[in-house]
Amino acid sequence: MKSRAAVAFGPGKPLEIVELDVAPPKAGEVLVRITHTGVCHTDAFTLSGDDPEGIFPAVLGHEGAGVVVEVGEGVTSVAPGDHVIPLYTAECRKCKFCLSGKTNLCSSVRATQGKGLMPDGTTRFSYQGKPIHHYMGCSTFSEYTVVAEVSVAKINPEANPQQVCLLGCGVTTGIGAVHKTAKVKAGDTVAVFGLGGIGLAVIQGARQAKAGRIIGVDTNPTKFDLARSMGATDTVNPKDHAKPIQEVIVELTDGGVDFSFECIGNVDVMRAALECCHKGWGESIIIGVAGAGQEIRTRPFQLVTGRVWRGSAFGGVKGRTELPAMVEASMKGEIELAPFVTHALPLDKINEAFDLMHEGKSIRTVIQY
Amino acid sequence: MKSRAAVAFGPGKPLEIVELDVAPPKAGEVLVRITHTGVCHTDAFTLSGDDPEGIFPAVLGHEGAGVVVEVGEGVTSVAPGDHVIPLYTAECRKCKFCLSGKTNLCSSVRATQGKGLMPDGTTRFSYQGKPIHHYMGCSTFSEYTVVAEVSVAKINPEANPQQVCLLGCGVTTGIGAVHKTAKVKAGDTVAVFGLGGIGLAVIQGARQAKAGRIIGVDTNPTKFDLARSMGATDTVNPKDHAKPIQEVIVELTDGGVDFSFECIGNVDVMRAALECCHKGWGESIIIGVAGAGQEIRTRPFQLVTGRVWRGSAFGGVKGRTELPAMVEASMKGEIELAPFVTHALPLDKINEAFDLMHEGKSIRTVIQY
Repeated sequence: MKSRAAVAFGPGKPLEIVELDVAPPKAGEVLVRITHTGVCHTDAFTLSGDDPEGIFPAVLGHEGAGVVVEVGEGVTSVAPGDHVIPLYTAECRKCKFCLSGKTNLCSSVRATQGKGLMPDGTTRFSYQGKPIHHYMGCSTFSEYTVVAEVSVAKINPEANPQQVCLLGCGVTTGIGAVHKTAKVKAGDTVAVFGLGGIGLAVIQGARQAKAGRIIGVDTNPTKFDLARSMGATDTVNPKDHAKPIQEVIVELTDGGVDFSFECIGNVDVMRAALECCHKGWGESIIIGVAGAGQEIRTRPFQLVTGRVWRGSAFGGVKGRTELPAMVEASMKGEIELAPFVTHALPLDKINEAFDLMHEGKSIRTVIQY
Repeated sequence: MKSRAAVAFGPGKPLEIVELDVAPPKAGEVLVRITHTGVCHTDAFTLSGDDPEGIFPAVLGHEGAGVVVEVGEGVTSVAPGDHVIPLYTAECRKCKFCLSGKTNLCSSVRATQGKGLMPDGTTRFSYQGKPIHHYMGCSTFSEYTVVAEVSVAKINPEANPQQVCLLGCGVTTGIGAVHKTAKVKAGDTVAVFGLGGIGLAVIQGARQAKAGRIIGVDTNPTKFDLARSMGATDTVNPKDHAKPIQEVIVELTDGGVDFSFECIGNVDVMRAALECCHKGWGESIIIGVAGAGQEIRTRPFQLVTGRVWRGSAFGGVKGRTELPAMVEASMKGEIELAPFVTHALPLDKINEAFDLMHEGKSIRTVIQY
């Protein structure tokens, strides 16, 4: 079938709006009509060419919501008409990882997903007869996309798709990191580095967890009002201080925070986030994705004296099992999604969404098909 | 009073056996007659001059056992005749750290201990009228030493002091790191980097925890027999492999270990120990003490994909509360201390103990007064 799509033909180039050919779903696959998709920093990272694993040409996009149109042979967990969120972190419930009970990093489709292919090693997208790659197992920048059955979460059809598409990546990543990875408890002190979509979601998660103090950190003070409205009790601009930000926060908190979250992808900030944790028990969670080849570093004494360094992917959330409840929570107002959607644009203006992001003007622009 | 002691008069010099003057214990202090002390790598590290916090002249030694001779004003938890182990990690039961329930890193005497002084800011040792510094709050290389009340654990007087002195540092550090820091469970796979006293204690702790596989890693294969006798199921010499040791262990374990322990103090080995952990849940615990200014490093992707980087000091063990039970466990044979004591020497041959250690010939030499 034909599908309008924004295709990344090469690194550093604007997306091109074209009519793709989409092949029907094979066994274990699902054809989804995407109704909404967020534009996330990770899409921009890959499009820029800085992502060493970026593959072109490809249909980017991984933060979507849609409706099942057709299912391939053997698909039982969803049916045409079901409302779904595509998952870049699959959940097969059969692999060593899914069965471990310790992680959400399913390995079932990892190898082919990383190559921009469906699990059988081929692609469902083509343009003028030439194959176009998938991206993160989702490719939500196409109105019609094919995903693996293990890569869709069935959600309440009454949910607002313009909002819940954000649960496909950013908001779930931030809120999940608080509850699933860090396990923040009432009264804990939290520092959040980077007040973009993920950082704001972390703040919201920390407020849900009844954290006693939530310190938002950003070099752009125009983000502070929104951070405070979501639950930040303090905001700190590193540019206002001569000493390293970790020392500022240690002083501000009488010894350091219980939990810190790095939501930028900057390895120097990752170090600061670790070192502002309280001796004896503070834990730092890396969420941001660093550039190729970059490394984190610190003195081992930081860890020997009780700090813990962790990371989080998709907030530690198991998509098929746990995302439906997060959608319900958003419908009850327990997760506030509306403040994240600062802009909405039609597909043919998707490059403006990237511009808004690069200029720091948007939290999320949602593309409506 | 007079006390025979081995004094470190300067970095890089042999210890000198002299008669020190030891002042009586002040309020909150305890005079202990040391009967036995181990000689640990940390003593050698400080003596070498590589320890940036080393202070001279000083009475080193921090792994001892002895008997209380006299107590200062207000001391209630021990009395003359009590058998004790001095603690370099105090436990006051009153500070923010002790009350947190999350760490053994008591802050009560930290500041003065780090300066080689008693809590009132003075020293009890002098030689020819000049002050000599304390070390790690213990100074077990003096037959008579003064320690803070919060820095002694009262133990069963029937325990063998030649053996249980090792619970003052190395063995507790290794066993505690397994049970208290890592919380190894039955069936877990464990890798232990460095098969000295700490590494062997980790192996023993992992066997107690019923770990399914215990992989000992060392570049000196003469250590493998003892490691196997203590519970190692596999031994690996990185020199036998062309590829990085983390890759060797990931292959050997079908994806990596559940827990790894760095027991050397080498920042490159710390990286390998982290990177041999299983994606999704593997945790690496740094026990070794690295040289001044050295830094650990890795790609943040290692953490984002679920590995956890931790450290452990004194095995996470609270000395006054938990060490007595570890002494009891050693008396029941649940902790085997005898294999660690490879050599015994009188105080006047203490420099030979350092030689044996540097030559890799001893696990522990115990000095008997």
